Order: sequence, then C-alpha cells, then structure tokens
Amino acid sequence: MPDPAPPRLKTRAAIVGCTGYTGFVLIDLLLRHPYAEPTYLASHRDELPDLRDEFPPLLGRLDPEVAVARPIDAEAIAQEADVVFLGLPHKAAMAYAPTLLDAGLRVIDLSADYRLTSQALYEEVYAVPHDDPANLADAVYGIPELFRNELPGATLVANPGCYPTAAALAVAPLLSHALVKTSRITINANSGVTGAGRSPKPHLHFPEFNQDYRAYGTIGGHRHQPEIAQTLSRVAGKPIDPLFVPHLLPVDRGILETIYLEPADPDVTEVELLAAFDDAYADEPFVRVREDLPGIKDVVGTNFCDLSVRLTEHGDEKTVVVFAAEDNMMKGASGQAIQNMNAVFELPETAGLL
Amino acid sequence: MPDPAPPRLKTRAAIVGCTGYTGFVLIDLLLRHPYAEPTYLASHRDELPDLRDEFPPLLGRLDPEVAVARPIDAEAIAQEADVVFLGLPHKAAMAYAPTLLDAGLRVIDLSADYRLTSQALYEEVYAVPHDDPANLADAVYGIPELFRNELPGATLVANPGCYPTAAALAVAPLLSHALVKTSRITINANSGVTGAGRSPKPHLHFPEFNQDYRAYGTIGGHRHQPEIAQTLSRVAGKPIDPLFVPHLLPVDRGILETIYLEPADPDVTEVELLAAFDDAYADEPFVRVREDLPGIKDVVGTNFCDLSVRLTEHGDEKTVVVFAAEDNMMKGASGQAIQNMNAVFELPETAGLL
Amino acid sequence: MPDPAPPRLKTRAAIVGCTGYTGFVLIDLLLRHPYAEPTYLASHRDELPDLRDEFPPLLGRLDPEVAVARPIDAEAIAQEADVVFLGLPHKAAMAYAPTLLDAGLRVIDLSADYRLTSQALYEEVYAVPHDDPANLADAVYGIPELFRNELPGATLVANPGCYPTAAALAVAPLLSHALVKTSRITINANSGVTGAGRSPKPHLHFPEFNQDYRAYGTIGGHRHQPEIAQTLSRVAGKPIDPLFVPHLLPVDRGILETIYLEPADPDVTEVELLAAFDDAYADEPFVRVREDLPGIKDVVGTNFCDLSVRLTEHGDEKTVVVFAAEDNMMKGASGQAIQNMNAVFELPETAGLL
Amino acid sequence: MPDPAPPRLKTRAAIVGCTGYTGFVLIDLLLRHPYAEPTYLASHRDELPDLRDEFPPLLGRLDPEVAVARPIDAEAIAQEADVVFLGLPHKAAMAYAPTLLDAGLRVIDLSADYRLTSQALYEEVYAVPHDDPANLADAVYGIPELFRNELPGATLVANPGCYPTAAALAVAPLLSHALVKTSRITINANSGVTGAGRSPKPHLHFPEFNQDYRAYGTIGGHRHQPEIAQTLSRVAGKPIDPLFVPHLLPVDRGILETIYLEPADPDVTEVELLAAFDDAYADEPFVRVREDLPGIKDVVGTNFCDLSVRLTEHGDEKTVVVFAAEDNMMKGASGQAIQNMNAVFELPETAGLL
Repeated sequence: MPDPAPPRLKTRAAIVGCTGYTGFVLIDLLLRHPYAEPTYLASHRDELPDLRDEFPPLLGRLDPEVAVARPIDAEAIAQEADVVFLGLPHKAAMAYAPTLLDAGLRVIDLSADYRLTSQALYEEVYAVPHDDPANLADAVYGIPELFRNELPGATLVANPGCYPTAAALAVAPLLSHALVKTSRITINANSGVTGAGRSPKPHLHFPEFNQDYRAYGTIGGHRHQPEIAQTLSRVAGKPIDPLFVPHLLPVDRGILETIYLEPADPDVTEVELLAAFDDAYADEPFVRVREDLPGIKDVVGTNFCDLSVRLTEHGDEKTVVVFAAEDNMMKGASGQAIQNMNAVFELPETAGLL
Repeated sequence: MPDPAPPRLKTRAAIVGCTGYTGFVLIDLLLRHPYAEPTYLASHRDELPDLRDEFPPLLGRLDPEVAVARPIDAEAIAQEADVVFLGLPHKAAMAYAPTLLDAGLRVIDLSADYRLTSQALYEEVYAVPHDDPANLADAVYGIPELFRNELPGATLVANPGCYPTAAALAVAPLLSHALVKTSRITINANSGVTGAGRSPKPHLHFPEFNQDYRAYGTIGGHRHQPEIAQTLSRVAGKPIDPLFVPHLLPVDRGILETIYLEPADPDVTEVELLAAFDDAYADEPFVRVREDLPGIKDVVGTNFCDLSVRLTEHGDEKTVVVFAAEDNMMKGASGQAIQNMNAVFELPETAGLL
Repeated sequence: MPDPAPPRLKTRAAIVGCTGYTGFVLIDLLLRHPYAEPTYLASHRDELPDLRDEFPPLLGRLDPEVAVARPIDAEAIAQEADVVFLGLPHKAAMAYAPTLLDAGLRVIDLSADYRLTSQALYEEVYAVPHDDPANLADAVYGIPELFRNELPGATLVANPGCYPTAAALAVAPLLSHALVKTSRITINANSGVTGAGRSPKPHLHFPEFNQDYRAYGTIGGHRHQPEIAQTLSRVAGKPIDPLFVPHLLPVDRGILETIYLEPADPDVTEVELLAAFDDAYADEPFVRVREDLPGIKDVVGTNFCDLSVRLTEHGDEKTVVVFAAEDNMMKGASGQAIQNMNAVFELPETAGLL
Repeated sequence: MPDPAPPRLKTRAAIVGCTGYTGFVLIDLLLRHPYAEPTYLASHRDELPDLRDEFPPLLGRLDPEVAVARPIDAEAIAQEADVVFLGLPHKAAMAYAPTLLDAGLRVIDLSADYRLTSQALYEEVYAVPHDDPANLADAVYGIPELFRNELPGATLVANPGCYPTAAALAVAPLLSHALVKTSRITINANSGVTGAGRSPKPHLHFPEFNQDYRAYGTIGGHRHQPEIAQTLSRVAGKPIDPLFVPHLLPVDRGILETIYLEPADPDVTEVELLAAFDDAYADEPFVRVREDLPGIKDVVGTNFCDLSVRLTEHGDEKTVVVFAAEDNMMKGASGQAIQNMNAVFELPETAGLL
C-alpha cells in the first residue's frame, strides 16, 4: 500500500536550543507527530552541531537537511516554521522571544522566563533583570488541564516547570473543592537526573551518583517553589506558600511527588477526596487517577501524570497524601510543550502523544 | 611476620536463619571482626545449605566446617557459641528464642518479635499471638546511642527495624531538647530493595523494578510505624504518633528519611537545632551530624547514620527538616546487631565496624 | 482541526499470549501504528487479565473493550482480526498456530517453533516433538533485510530470536561478500534482562542481579546457536557453526554483540569491509552502519540495528570485529514482528516504527 | 574489655595522589588493616583537600590530623611513612618515584609508569619519554600469584593494570601447562565506570551512560594490551600478542573478561584444563577457581579474582573459554597494592583483605 498523502499541511516547528535533553525529546515527538514536523533546528553554538551526532537515536530518522543546526535567525525561522520551541536556559530565552514573536511565530518557551507573572518575583528568584516585561503579561501558563481556555491561538506559552506541573495537577482539585487547608502543604519531590540538564557536573559523574539518592540544593529555596506557589494560589484564590523539598533519584527520567496536606474538615472521607479528582480529571486524556500507587516506571516515556490520593489517620491527626508521577521530560517538559502546541493550533490535543 | 596470637578467646557467634540478606551481612561482619567469629550457622531448611553457595562472596573466606548450615539445635548451639543472632522472620524468632535463652545463650533478635513492649500492640500489628510474653519484658531495645546503659550484660536484645533506627536517631535530639512539637511529624522514608527480603516477588523481578521508584503498602499503615511511635514517645515522655510513608528505591541498599516537624518555638534558630544534635551525638562513633546533605552512597557499606537538619521558612510558616541516611543492612540491621553484641559483651563498641 | 478520517481500514491485529514483555511491546506499537490496531487480546490464563492492570503504561491508551483478555478461540479471533501475533512460549505456539492458520489468519509467531527448518534439529534443541511439521515447511523466517522477497503475502512468519537477528545482520554482508572465513566465528553476546522473560526467578530478583554482569547457561549450548548457524549457513551457502556465548547485562533492554572473525584474505582493508556493509544496508531503514561504536542506549526503544566494523592487527594476526546493537524487545522481537506484518500486508515497512 | 595493645608497630603508609578512586580505596583498606595505617596523605593540588570532604564515607573514620592532604615532600613523607603508594596519573608517577625511593621509602606505583619493562615500548604506547629508566629495570611487576618470589623486600613495585591482572590470572595456567595455542587469543573485556577515573566526562555524565553498554576506544589499541602481551609472553616464554577489546558496563565497579583460546591439542578435556587451574591456584587465597560462572557481584568489594574454564565444541572446532571476574578497584588496583605491600613487608599476605 502506498503511503497515503497527508490530509493537510503539517504544522512546521522550529526548535531554538536543541542540544539539551528537552530539545532531543521535542525532536523525537515531532518526528512521530501526525500533524506537525520539525523544519528548523537552531543552535547558538559557534560550531553548529549535527543533531544526529548529538543524539544517535535520531540517526536514520531525522532528515539530513534538517539535522544540521542552523543559526538563530528569526526571519529565516519565520519563513520555515509556524511555531518555535525555546529549549534555552532562562535569560537566553527572553533574549530571543521578542524577535521571534515579532516575526510572527508562535513561541512555546520551555525556560522559566515567562512563567512567573510578577517581574519583581522573577528578578528576585533568578537574580537577573527581566528583559521582556512587555510580553510577560501576555504569556499563557501552559497546563491545559487547568488553564485550557487560554491556549487556542495564544502567541506565547510559558511551558511550566517539571516539578510545578506535577504539584499543580496533584493539589488543584483539593484546593478548588476546598478540601484541604491552604497552610502547611509539604511537597516531597524526587526527580531523575535529566532534570539537572545535559552538562556534565562532578557530582553527577556516573560513579559518583550511580545508586545514590539524596536531597539537594537549598532546602526550601528551590526556584520551582515560587512557580508552584503562584499556581496553587491562583487555583485557591488566596496565597499559598508550600514547602518544597527536591531529591535526586538514580534514574534518567521520572518525577514522583509525595504531597502532605491537612484536611479542611476532619470528617472528610477518602471517597470525597477521590470524587474531587474524578471531577477534575475524568475526561482528561493525560491525567490518570489511580486506585493503586503510581511509580515512575508507569509513566516514563509517556505524557501521563498519574495521581493517587490517600487519607491517613495517626493518633488524632489526619493527613491527606497525594502521589503524583510523571516523566519530567514529557508531561514535565517536552510532552506538555507538544500538548500546548496542539492546543494553540487547535489540533487534537493528544496528537502525537499517545 | 607471623600472624600474632589473638589476645583473647574470641566471642563465638551463632546465626540462626542465615540465608537472608541480614544473615549474609552478619557473617561478613563477623569474619572481619577482631574479637568475635562465626562458629555455628543454623537453618530451618530441610536441605541444609552451604552458605558459600548461597553467597559466593563468602567463598574462600568462610571456614568449610562452619559454612554448611546445621539444624537449629539449642543445646548444640550453646556448646559452640556465646551469642546467637536470630535472622528469622517474625513469629519464627520467638519460637526459638526461649529455648536458646534457656540454654544460656545471649540472644540478639533481628526480627520484630521483641521490639514492641506491648504484647497487645504486637498482636494487633502482626496479627499473630505473641508466644513468649515472659521474655518480652526483659528485652532491651538496641539503639546504643539512645539506650546504651541497658545493653551491657543484657540477655535478650531486640534489634530495631531499619526505618525506626534512622527515624529515632533523627528525631530524638529534637524531642529531648523540646525543640519541636510532638504533633504532625511526617516521616517520608525511602529504602533500597534488600529491605524487602531475599525471596523473589513478581513486582521486584529485575525488569519490573529496575529504574522505578514508588511508595508502597498501606499508606500510614506500615508495621514500622508503631515501633517508631514507641521510641519517639519514650524519648519525649508523651505519646507521639507520626505519619510514616515508605517508598522503594531502585538500589540494593540504603535508607534516606526526610522528616518534617513543626518547631515548638517559632523563634528557634538553625544553630539551636544543630546544637541539640551535637549535644546528643558529638561523641557517638556511628552518628555523623553533617552540614551538607547526606546521600545513601555516603553510608552504604558502613554502620554510620548521617544526619542533617534545616530550618525552613515559607510564608509565615516554619518547618524543621531532618535528613537521615543509613545502610538498611548495617546500622539498620546487621551492623547495629554487631554493635549491640559489642555493647552486651563490653567489647569496644566500634570493633569490626569501622 | 478535527481528526481526519483514516485513509483506509486498518489492519486488525490479535495477540495470543499478551502478558509477557513481547506482548506489551506489541500492544504499544500497534497503538501507535497508523495503519493497524489491536482488536483482540487473548490469554490462556484461567483468570483473564485486564492488560491495563498488567501494564500500567497502557492505562488510558488501550480501549476498555479490547483491554480485557479473551480466551484463545480461533474462530472468534478470525472474525475480529486479520493477523495474529503469537507471544507464547515455544511448544505452546505450535499448539495454536495450525488452527489459527486454518481459520484464515496470517500468523506471526514470536516463539522458536517455526524458526528451525529441520524438524529433527528442533526436536533435539528443544527436547520436545514438533507437533506441526506440515506448516514448518511453509514458515518464512522473518528478517526483512535478508529475506524480504518471501514476506509479501506470507501466511506464517517465524519471527527470529533476539540474538540471531543481531548476529545475522552483523555477519551476513561479510559472508555474502566472502570477506571472512567461515570457521572460528565467535559471537560474544550480551542482553538486558527482559530477554529472560517476565516470570520472577531467584537469580533475577532485583537485589540479586542489580549491578551484576555475568555469562549464563551452558557455554556454547544456548538454544539460539543453531538458529544463528542456520541463517549464517544459508547466507554463506555452506555450513557454519559459530561459537555463541551470551551474558546478562543489568539493564532492562538492549543487546550488544561483539563478533570476532578471521579475514578470508589477509590483505583485506577496513574500507572493503565497510563497503560490504554499505552495499547490503545503504537503503535499509532499520540498519544503521556507523563509523563510531554503537551502544545499547542508542537503539533502546527503536527498531534499529546499529553496526560497526573494525579490522584489527595484533602481531601478525588480523581479526575482523563487528559490533551489533539492537533493542531485544524491538528489532529483536516485537518491532521486527511489526516490520514483518508491514511486509506481509504490503504496508510501508517503516509504518509505526520510526 | 579494653582494646588490646597492637602487637607491633604498624607499617606506616603514605599515599601520593589520593583524590582519585584508587586513593579512596587505599585509605579505606589501610583503615581496616591490622598491621598498617595511613599516616601521610599527599596531593599536588594547589588547594589541599580534606579527604573527608572528598569522600564522605571517610568521615568519622579518618584521623583529622591525617585527613587534610599535605604537599608532596619526599623528606617529610620519609619521616612519617615506611611505604608510599602512588595514585597519580602516568607520567606524574615517575616524576616523584625517584626522589621517594632516594628518601628510603618503598614505592608501590599504581600508574603505568613502571609496568612495561621496555622503555621503548612505554614511550610508544604512552607517547611520552620515560624519565626514570634507571628504576625501570628494578621495578617488580606485582601479581603475587605469578611472581611472588620477587616481592619480599622489593623497593619499587609496579602495580598492574586492572584488565591485565584478570587476563594474566585467567590465561597463565593454560600457557604454563601448554594447553592452548599462543596465537589467536581473544580477550573480550568489560569494566565498571570507576575504571575511567573520577574526572567528569560528557559521555559519562549520569544520564548519558546510565543503562548503556558499549565498546570503547580504538579497537585493538588499548594501552593495556601491551601490558597483557608482556605478561603472557613472559609466562609462555615466547611472544604472545592477544586481541583485547574493552567494553564499559553501567556499574561502578567490576571487571569480567571472557577469553577465547584454541586448545593446543584437540583431544584436551575440560578436566585437564581445570587441573591446570587447580595446580596453579589451589593454595592461593585470592584466586577462586569455580565450577559455576562468576559474576562481578560475587567479587565487588573483595580482593578475589574468580575464574571458570569451559571447553566448547561447535562443528569440528573446539574453543577454550575462560571467565575472569574481579573488582577493578580491588584485585585490579588498590586491593592488589595492599597485597603487594603485605608481600614486600612480609606481613601475612591476606592481612586487611579478607
């Protein structure tokens, strides 16, 4: 059977900053996508890499004409693409976004540069001035399950952080149904090592971290905490400031968050908690509310976020415990970016992701 | 140089139930011990195993006459040993302990059978009747750092559980110095897979669990919770009932617990917290109070328990976070059992363990 | 954009024996396939499993009506499927194949039952009588790169073993170009643990095998050796009997074979060797002839077989060394099964696989 | 019981170059050694490290006065030590060895600088001039099982490479008993990642190499090949030039070599092969000749080298296959260095190593 003609022109996607792990996963997903394709890969390296050398799994899959990265030239990109994904570090992303937007491209930014709505908070957390406050106000925070109606036609999407996506999906139904207190929310989080980026670091040299497990960073001071706080506060309609403690797992991919909350009403039942999750996510293709406990192996390589909720009693205290598992590279980064692209261009939201 | 004569007769140690991971580590430690040696290995298997076949690392180290397990015969053991370690499952341990004690042996039980001081609680948690309540009252709970004075000359030591050891060492200084509230203590715990025993299980088949990570069991209902509660209550002098949530790590060995507590006084400082730990452990050879964050790789293969404490602020809330790392097979089981043996026989407590 | 109508009726695929790793990967691949779909999942278990419970990654992807396995009923399968994949152990496969063929289904058998063309050899190697010699003669050995012309319209495909696929692709060009001697071929092979199946085994309990590496089985006597010998002999047109030594790697997936051969002509050059590979595979979508050395991480999750060739000199001896990497679950099993299905039904051979 | 007085003054050991993995294992072994102790740790870093910061497992074990590295001062070292281990890269080792020897110290060099007896070959393989040819002739190649009689009282020991130790022990009995041909010896070797050193490298960043497996380097051209060739030639009394192909395993420690040889006499039996190994190693404490197949997990953390031998037939060809497993950090480096120290100082050879 001859390969049938595609039913429409595919959405043309550029990636600026494609040599990190998020870039690789974006390319992989675009190559599998039925209605989109990678057309322009850009790098700010002086020596422009061939992505097939960077990522051998792309050998034999990536068109040779696309595979060699090109310079970051907004006009050239706009001629060959409809949408551009920014896989750059924070600060670098907002250096390119305005020009790309001006050239008429939709921009989906995987960095932190447009996630915090407060310029002042951004500047405090990231310790750099924000260079593009004008576009900050227009950026849509891209968690479709929570803020879907803002996505169709959006010009600039701030793709959420990996930890914040899982935390927001895990806690939002409890807040929107007022089932938990807004104080003393503790997020015990764990991530695979791709979350730390692709640059070699002494403590992540294979024999240093293999078979290890530990918390890291300034406890309570991770940059994702303000992003989580912002989303939870938005959902609850009042300020929430959770405790967030990240740990590093000796695996490539996967996030598991175990979240502890106090019930608003001591007489709440687990059935009521579960009902809130079902209410929120029964029709969501990428959130799976489970009766058993999720593991990262259930979700790695997928765009799913798996959730379980438990009500525990110990002495006369009750605690709501939520487990949230996702692939930090997929629902936590590039998978959600594709989901956002689908929503922006009004493609089927699951296209290329199931 | 000829090998110098040993300065005294070595303490002769038997192990009853030696084909599990704790048995293997006990043998390994006894073979390295300067003042003790394994003399009698006993198994309740019908076909008595050669421990060198069970555990190839023992080949060439274990005396052929000792290597082949013998039946569990209390009189025979008493003739060849001064102390016996019970590496049996709960219920089986208390079936043998009385006879072994009657035969004049010191008993160090690595099972749960003598850990809970309340017979009723034991019977509720383990869902079996307690067959040896007489000895229950005499058992010494063997965490030397907390209850050292009870150990010299003790006849029956209840060797603590892996999770409870780390939790007790992590929280005790805060309780004894009244620095934290006794309510809402949350213990987020993680263990390597040896903690689940040596019997194959479908969900722990290598390709099922490799690179996975997840919580397990009935959340809030793990059997170690009452043991933790008992020790913390004893230290605090009032009832404490923490929330305990265990997770399984894709590694062989290692426990890391991240413990969340509320400060008793909102004006407490991190310096005060640290002072309590230094006060408790400055002279302890196996507890290392660290400024940086401990990882399991720092302690695997050692008898150390590493502790770090942090005071975090988020919004107007403060939380004390304690990190505790240990090797579940060492300080969490067989290493602590040797430490207890050293204390019982008044050998140098670090002998064979540094 | 509405999801466009599919351009044709999809090929309907059944899987008989779907609770093993090959079954899971087949379902996953069929769910991503543009021109095929899983319609009937069958199990010979008494209690018919829901595949979404067996394999949580299928939750939310597999149609509830298909997800619950049904009995192995040839007539029922023939009504709902065009092709059936047999994911059964050897011996069980040939118990079902004749009936399924008689019911008009195309059969792609992932077991060993139809791989060896000699009934006598099969019976010697597998130590059971062959129950279906009639169909043995008609079975097509499904390595498209070597025997593509036999596949279109085939009714019964013997899907090759994981090790034999890599070995055949690695050595065939050297034999067909008469560049190596047909004696003293040594295949040093390594596989991830999924190759050992999904049933728990004591030596593959996580803490027993994690971070281990070793050869296994009767050295020189692995069941895949005769299959490799058969294919190499067929390609060379003369009997070849290589030495095959498998090892187990502490990973889930991936095969790497390092193969040692003697050059036929001592004056051969590496350029000539490489030319033979290019000649054989330049147009093959799933064989990547590489200049650098392949690792299993380059191919895991893909249907590629990566090959590199080197000519070494040591003293006055020369040796040709070929490296072959594949995913034992993909090109080594289920991926190749889908490739064979594509070839049988004359779909684009790469459909659903890139 | 008071800790008994040590029976003699302990051998005082210095380590020059102690921040690599071999340095760490040396310190660990010396701390457990009954008749030796670390007294002087030296580093050529400008900022002298505290080894307890470099290696947290040493916290609480290493005397604070010893823990902080000191400069490499031969006179000072000679005042505080009897023996010095060189844990330096090649080239750096021979820059310090002469001065340390002149100061009266015994030197055990873990680098490659004194392993090859031919200065010309060294300079070809390592592409640097040899700065200390005078001492080259006096260096003893330290594999006690093969060359024990040269060790007592030796002033300079060239501690062998990790791969060469396993290869030499695996093949020597076959050569010394003339059971195999001296041509076409193929060594398929595998090592854990500590073998690549402690400096971070992009391809050994955790997510790049985790769960991978591949050959590396110039196939046939590894620097350990000439060292292996030298030892095998010495044992055989005639030139041997094996093919050596190393691979990297996704584990920290462990070497497994699978070695293929042709029998000298086609009528040789496996019993005869085994007899040669028993003849060579029956009384050796660190070589375990096994009937079953060794895995790296059997030897990691020990100073053992495990060997198995098989005779295979395939067609009319016979091949001898030897499996050799060792811990590359122990018998392959620091463990053997301690064994050599014991032999040099006529301590019990197993002291501190069982």
